Amino acid sequence: MNEFTIIKKYFSNLSKKNKGSFDLSDDIFFDYKKKVGVSIDTYIEGIHFLNFRHPGLIIKKALRGAISDLICKGIVPKYYFISFSGNNKHLTQANLAKINLSLRQEQKKYNIILAGGDTSYSSKLSITISVYGYSKKKPVLRSGAKINDDIYLTNNIGDAFVGLNILKKRVKMNRRASNYFIKKFYLPTIPNIFSKKIHLFANSSIDISDGLFQDLNHILLSSNFSSDIFVKNIPMSLYLKSYLKNKNKKVLNFISNGDDYQILFTANKSKRNLIKKISKITSTKVTRIGIITNRSVSNNVKLINGKFRLPKKLGYIHNFS
Amino acid sequence: MNEFTIIKKYFSNLSKKNKGSFDLSDDIFFDYKKKVGVSIDTYIEGIHFLNFRHPGLIIKKALRGAISDLICKGIVPKYYFISFSGNNKHLTQANLAKINLSLRQEQKKYNIILAGGDTSYSSKLSITISVYGYSKKKPVLRSGAKINDDIYLTNNIGDAFVGLNILKKRVKMNRRASNYFIKKFYLPTIPNIFSKKIHLFANSSIDISDGLFQDLNHILLSSNFSSDIFVKNIPMSLYLKSYLKNKNKKVLNFISNGDDYQILFTANKSKRNLIKKISKITSTKVTRIGIITNRSVSNNVKLINGKFRLPKKLGYIHNFS
Repeated sequence: MNEFTIIKKYFSNLSKKNKGSFDLSDDIFFDYKKKVGVSIDTYIEGIHFLNFRHPGLIIKKALRGAISDLICKGIVPKYYFISFSGNNKHLTQANLAKINLSLRQEQKKYNIILAGGDTSYSSKLSITISVYGYSKKKPVLRSGAKINDDIYLTNNIGDAFVGLNILKKRVKMNRRASNYFIKKFYLPTIPNIFSKKIHLFANSSIDISDGLFQDLNHILLSSNFSSDIFVKNIPMSLYLKSYLKNKNKKVLNFISNGDDYQILFTANKSKRNLIKKISKITSTKVTRIGIITNRSVSNNVKLINGKFRLPKKLGYIHNFS
Repeated sequence: MNEFTIIKKYFSNLSKKNKGSFDLSDDIFFDYKKKVGVSIDTYIEGIHFLNFRHPGLIIKKALRGAISDLICKGIVPKYYFISFSGNNKHLTQANLAKINLSLRQEQKKYNIILAGGDTSYSSKLSITISVYGYSKKKPVLRSGAKINDDIYLTNNIGDAFVGLNILKKRVKMNRRASNYFIKKFYLPTIPNIFSKKIHLFANSSIDISDGLFQDLNHILLSSNFSSDIFVKNIPMSLYLKSYLKNKNKKVLNFISNGDDYQILFTANKSKRNLIKKISKITSTKVTRIGIITNRSVSNNVKLINGKFRLPKKLGYIHNFS
């Protein structure tokens, strides 16, 4: 069984009586009475990050990943909780000082405050972050896509995966490019300001944490629709384009591996001008990459521009069997 | 450094701008604007519980421990989040079915609903539970004790520690007593109904998770007061009294080891009749065990009734050095 089957089979029946739990099929909880949104995420050494050699960067990445779940729904993060489990090698004074500095910087950048947490001894490091925020309007969910909606992506995707492979020493390149990709892995540019306007135009929305196609599939499965994706439109950085071209690598192996923390959303065609305007005002790159269709194809995702075939593995999944 | 030093030195400055974080010196966060309370707790295999042989009991214990943080402040739990990290031996279908059944039972018992969570692969099992609730009034904090306040405890303490030692095979006794103590370890009787009235009388309050004297010390340190504790009044079950008497064991070695999840609170003397009445109505044993004083003694806690000496270790602390 994988994580999605486990949640569906053994947990979603426990949330049935609460509409704000969305049958555990979305990444957040929304308290409709209080207009409060909450998300919770766990990061494990060796799974979500390679090691704890750069605690200041790891904690920033984990926090941005957690914030990302809320902002893509139009919920403004206010408070966060951190639960650290680790041993005396993880929680040294030097590491704690770095973590403190990083958190101070992120608090300023995203206007959030530490609200609580927990510290436990464990031989293995794990970090659970919960983010708590407000939204005056209903959250934009995975499940609102309509036929003929445009499909959009914020910023670029794929950089973090190259960064991860550089850290794993599977990929080598010059120092400048290398630094660029590693930075994108640790410090994703989450579209915080842009997301505050998402209620104005989006019918459905998700953040890309596991991989473009897998997260797109979540949107499609929850609305029973399909999609046409224009692969050539998928936004990539100049660094990534240049790397793929020079090394003659296949684009599709690089754009759906997760860690991007960009927003994938759908919107009615009538919103195109509004989206362009908000993209400009908030200095956020927004790219139209496809369209929602009612044709049912295997995997729901059809790649347009001829020669591309969807990879078998659509993204990262935690497997337990 | 231990957990308390770490929080004080490296985290509490991050919460300074929010009064509902209480400088991270309490177990909860309270959103004064929305009147929402949140607590978060992590449970690690080998630290908080011995193993995962009884997943249905472990999950109940963890959930009750998490609820306990909120109810002792007068916050009514509404929703909870569970983040599971484990491997394919932890998250088997049989284990997941047991967890599901247990959670369904607890949801009914405490009127709570699963709101969200996370499932990650990890070689080591850890469970993080966050509980989210409402309170119309300000939460009753650790820090409100007044001089001459009575000190009270709900139900009994000490049983869980004997249960733990039976499970560790350090203590042997007959089957009936053994079952009793093990049950108290896994399924603490948290004073849920009684706690709903706590606003009416308590000046300060904490749940006993780490040990009576250590948690009492948290109350004393945050108000700069001391206490006289009448050891002979400390409420124990007949099973525990009989065990201590038969084996000629020292009481003080058994009453401050944690896992009790009872409420320790202080109240003005004028509230004695009210507390008796509410104790009766809610069928909850409530015992007066001491008094808040302004005498400053080492460790703040003075044990009355002559022959007792405070143990060096006041309770459980996570140490990282």
